[in-house]
Amino acid sequence: MIIKCVEQLKNIRGETASLGFVPTMGYLHEGHVSLIKKARQENDQVVVSVFVNPTQFGPNEDIETYPKNIERDQAMAVSAGADYVFYPHISTIYPEGASTYVTVEGPIANILCAKSRPDHFKGVTTVVNILLNMVQPDRVYFGQKDAQQAILIQKMARDLHMPVDVVVCPIVREYDGLALSSRNVHLTREERKQAQCLYQALQDAKNLVKSKDQKAADLVQVMKNRINHKPLVNIDYVEIREARDLSPVTVVKAHPDSHKVSLALVAAWVGKTRLIDNMFLNEE
Amino acid sequence: MIIKCVEQLKNIRGETASLGFVPTMGYLHEGHVSLIKKARQENDQVVVSVFVNPTQFGPNEDIETYPKNIERDQAMAVSAGADYVFYPHISTIYPEGASTYVTVEGPIANILCAKSRPDHFKGVTTVVNILLNMVQPDRVYFGQKDAQQAILIQKMARDLHMPVDVVVCPIVREYDGLALSSRNVHLTREERKQAQCLYQALQDAKNLVKSKDQKAADLVQVMKNRINHKPLVNIDYVEIREARDLSPVTVVKAHPDSHKVSLALVAAWVGKTRLIDNMFLNEE
Repeated sequence: MIIKCVEQLKNIRGETASLGFVPTMGYLHEGHVSLIKKARQENDQVVVSVFVNPTQFGPNEDIETYPKNIERDQAMAVSAGADYVFYPHISTIYPEGASTYVTVEGPIANILCAKSRPDHFKGVTTVVNILLNMVQPDRVYFGQKDAQQAILIQKMARDLHMPVDVVVCPIVREYDGLALSSRNVHLTREERKQAQCLYQALQDAKNLVKSKDQKAADLVQVMKNRINHKPLVNIDYVEIREARDLSPVTVVKAHPDSHKVSLALVAAWVGKTRLIDNMFLNEE
Repeated sequence: MIIKCVEQLKNIRGETASLGFVPTMGYLHEGHVSLIKKARQENDQVVVSVFVNPTQFGPNEDIETYPKNIERDQAMAVSAGADYVFYPHISTIYPEGASTYVTVEGPIANILCAKSRPDHFKGVTTVVNILLNMVQPDRVYFGQKDAQQAILIQKMARDLHMPVDVVVCPIVREYDGLALSSRNVHLTREERKQAQCLYQALQDAKNLVKSKDQKAADLVQVMKNRINHKPLVNIDYVEIREARDLSPVTVVKAHPDSHKVSLALVAAWVGKTRLIDNMFLNEE
């Protein structure tokens, strides 16, 4: 059932013992489906939101071409176990004159995707804060694919003592390893083919760590070499950081303790489409 | 009963049909008491917090000398109708590494007190957001004395769709009109005497508006003249603004419609103590 207004959300919250929430920008894929299924398992009722949030797009970014199909989204969400699809008008989220923002400050907010998308995460943390206040779920679900986003939202929820558990679910991939993204639909046949190098690069790094400790800089070079081999793919960043808080890493241990898991992260333009991906290099 | 941890707050929330919350920085006076009494009338349970929030003090401000007396505060709060006094350690509010902030942007955040206290309101909106997430009250109570704070918090709650009613209660004054403030305790006998000029100035403006419409600039001059007559009192600002959103006012109508109520606001140093006060000039 599609709902549009906050009163309906309040009624759902009031009547539900445990409520799971999956915020999305729509054009759902199997990655979203995995979040909804997880929410279905863990909660009595599940709300999925579909809202393409303008404040997380920069002035020259792709909000105009961001793919949309609410009928298909509704069918997929319900089929995966959603009870309600919250599909608000922009004025419901941002009433006229709204000018309050939630920002995570510090190094974590100025690295990786934040470098090429300066106000992106301010838009993300603000809209997620708003949606959490509206839905008041017990648990909210995000994908590991947007690793920096997931960590920032966990940090926001912790720092502001928000009464919600933030659950991060594994990346879902295509048959050839490409991470699912609503933006994959924009890739031409040749771009789609070359895009798998992102996964391969991450896999290269992971394989090298299996046998012995590796310098992070060496692994980054291996990954860059793999990606630079593909003429339609242009690197934005390739980095290795601590999975826990995205702090810098110099050596990736083959067998780390559980607090020192390393994460390789890539972002690249494939034609006109910006894709991101990441992989834990030394998980147990 | 004094409580220190968030688990206790969650239990209170879980067991209470309606919960009122009065956040304070302690050293309670009759202004706080009026908020607690109001909360008592409107809710099944009442939580008062006492937390001197470091992030709302500037580097050269008076956090070190801010008056403290938790035993007295507890007795006054309970006597006024509080069920619980939440008296958290600083690390409960701001765990190590916390760096998430809630800010209201726009003109309202750059005028009046924000000019002489640049990061003050960022600290206020952040700590109030945190406390509201911890306590999860149905209603939260603030005093009109801190007019800009009250409007910013109402705006934050509205913009972020926080599930709480923000209730603003009238200023409580001493016999001679001085607005109650925890900082009044710092005034010397002579400063205390001269400080009443702030109230008198506001009253001057209000009296002038009773008979006919007045230019805001003329009223400001009358108020400044009254205050400048007192050698121990140094004006920070004297302004007249719309009560609703603190937007500028040029003419104060003797008989406005309800959306155009004007508010006169003053801030001044009385010796080393900074005091603020305000008055609606043309309420029905």
